Amino acid sequence: MVANVIREGMEAVEQKLRSVVDSDVQLLTDASRHIISSGGKRLRPQIALMAYLAAGGDEWHEVIPLASAIEMVHTATLVHDDINDHSLTRRGQVTVHARWGRTFALLTGDYLFTKVYEMMAPYGAPYNEIMAEACIRLVEGETLQAAAAKAGQMDRETYKAIISRKTASLFDAAARMGAMLAGAEETVVESLAIYAHNLGLAFQMVDDILDIIGDPEKMGKPVGLDVAQHRGITAVQNGHAGEAAAVAIAEMTPPADDPLAQMMARLRDSGAVEIARMQAREIADRARAALVHVPDSPYRQALYEVVDMVIERDK
Amino acid sequence: MVANVIREGMEAVEQKLRSVVDSDVQLLTDASRHIISSGGKRLRPQIALMAYLAAGGDEWHEVIPLASAIEMVHTATLVHDDINDHSLTRRGQVTVHARWGRTFALLTGDYLFTKVYEMMAPYGAPYNEIMAEACIRLVEGETLQAAAAKAGQMDRETYKAIISRKTASLFDAAARMGAMLAGAEETVVESLAIYAHNLGLAFQMVDDILDIIGDPEKMGKPVGLDVAQHRGITAVQNGHAGEAAAVAIAEMTPPADDPLAQMMARLRDSGAVEIARMQAREIADRARAALVHVPDSPYRQALYEVVDMVIERDK
Repeated sequence: MVANVIREGMEAVEQKLRSVVDSDVQLLTDASRHIISSGGKRLRPQIALMAYLAAGGDEWHEVIPLASAIEMVHTATLVHDDINDHSLTRRGQVTVHARWGRTFALLTGDYLFTKVYEMMAPYGAPYNEIMAEACIRLVEGETLQAAAAKAGQMDRETYKAIISRKTASLFDAAARMGAMLAGAEETVVESLAIYAHNLGLAFQMVDDILDIIGDPEKMGKPVGLDVAQHRGITAVQNGHAGEAAAVAIAEMTPPADDPLAQMMARLRDSGAVEIARMQAREIADRARAALVHVPDSPYRQALYEVVDMVIERDK
Repeated sequence: MVANVIREGMEAVEQKLRSVVDSDVQLLTDASRHIISSGGKRLRPQIALMAYLAAGGDEWHEVIPLASAIEMVHTATLVHDDINDHSLTRRGQVTVHARWGRTFALLTGDYLFTKVYEMMAPYGAPYNEIMAEACIRLVEGETLQAAAAKAGQMDRETYKAIISRKTASLFDAAARMGAMLAGAEETVVESLAIYAHNLGLAFQMVDDILDIIGDPEKMGKPVGLDVAQHRGITAVQNGHAGEAAAVAIAEMTPPADDPLAQMMARLRDSGAVEIARMQAREIADRARAALVHVPDSPYRQALYEVVDMVIERDK
């Protein structure tokens, strides 16, 4: 029953994502559908839908455009990220950038942002204010990340600020708006937002860990990219042993052959990864704790299960 | 009196544009202020303000965030355009792309879009729906233009579709929303929207003409860029003599030294430019004609004067 409603809702999100990008400018339709149909976990819209249901919403169709808009923000940033990262593959598919070139990738990302706006507009002021704020934080987080990568250094505080803004803020907005739309009382709305914020942080830390230890086949993308750009290391730095690992990396003279592979091997062997994963588990516990203030229901149970899935995933 | 209100309103827009981009991520504040403070004609927000006043609005402060958002859409697209065009100067200043690099220029453009969203959100659903639609059309227009440039060909219909979407749709939305906010009746709202749409078309045609015959010193940017990318020619093609000019260009074997300068000289000498300017004047007449349905007032008079200014400008 619960699983059925969530599955139906997520199918409606999928349908909405594909139909909303339709344009008589065929290239925009094609490039948009390309990135949308290449999949992804759809975790953000699922959080919006599940928060709506857990908050007592009983007409899930009303949350679909909102949930789809949340995923579309994420999708738009992926298209622009791939330009900046020069990525050739994403989710096992060729990137929009690689297939259509930089100019059209930039425009496709912009187009997807305008579609976020289109889907959100009918919800009125409070929802659009929350979404605008989340989008601002996201771009700020991406900018902090690019600046840290360019400077070739990253400290713990910067890493926290980055993942909070670039990832957790959109998770937060998804749950907050879903709960508001269900007409939930303030305590429940805030609790679900705190749940989602911490879930987002844990999700991003695991993502950074998988960039180091993940199987490229399972991930559908190259690993080590973040390490190469001084980003992923910070997930490891975030653990206590991580500092030692970071120092080791800093002191390491790059060898002639494949320094990236050697750097990654050292990171894996340092034990720092396990400590970073433990920290992600601690943050995940905070997400679970926030659910105490949400009325018991099969949907709340499903939100607990999402935490387990995010923490234990290997892709 | 009229001039005073418009000047005060435009100063408030300027203030809003500068203050709204403030962020603790200093790079975003700096890059945003750089492009904002480099000036520009501010024609779009002025149309929003003047339409509001001509439609009977008497509390101009309420239109300022909306007018600023309109200008911010335009500003965001300039930042992204400069990436795609590899432009080094804009409005006599170094571009964000040239000064901060591609990655940060891309993020700054995205950031400005999120600020559009922030300023618009409080106006509620109908306004945000109009703005979203205008942004969609704008990106579609830019995409059509990039596709035509890439294919190295442009016909009259494509040119019309491009300038209608990339320029006129935002002018249309500016006047429409300004008039709506003033509480004007439907006929007045539509008339002001038609006025602005045609003003936008004429403005863009003159812009393309100035790309061919303009003085780079006055323009504050290099000329000939559009010609080089098979865009500006189309303003000329749009005149009857333009077709002959286009054929001449197509048949011209590029000489060894500066083919662009020679191509532009041929365009200037063909007489096509004057015919294109005449066509822009015809479209400007349609803008004036739409004002017949707007109640007479000093603000309506000011809207007539904007048409003259747009058509006769030399920069």
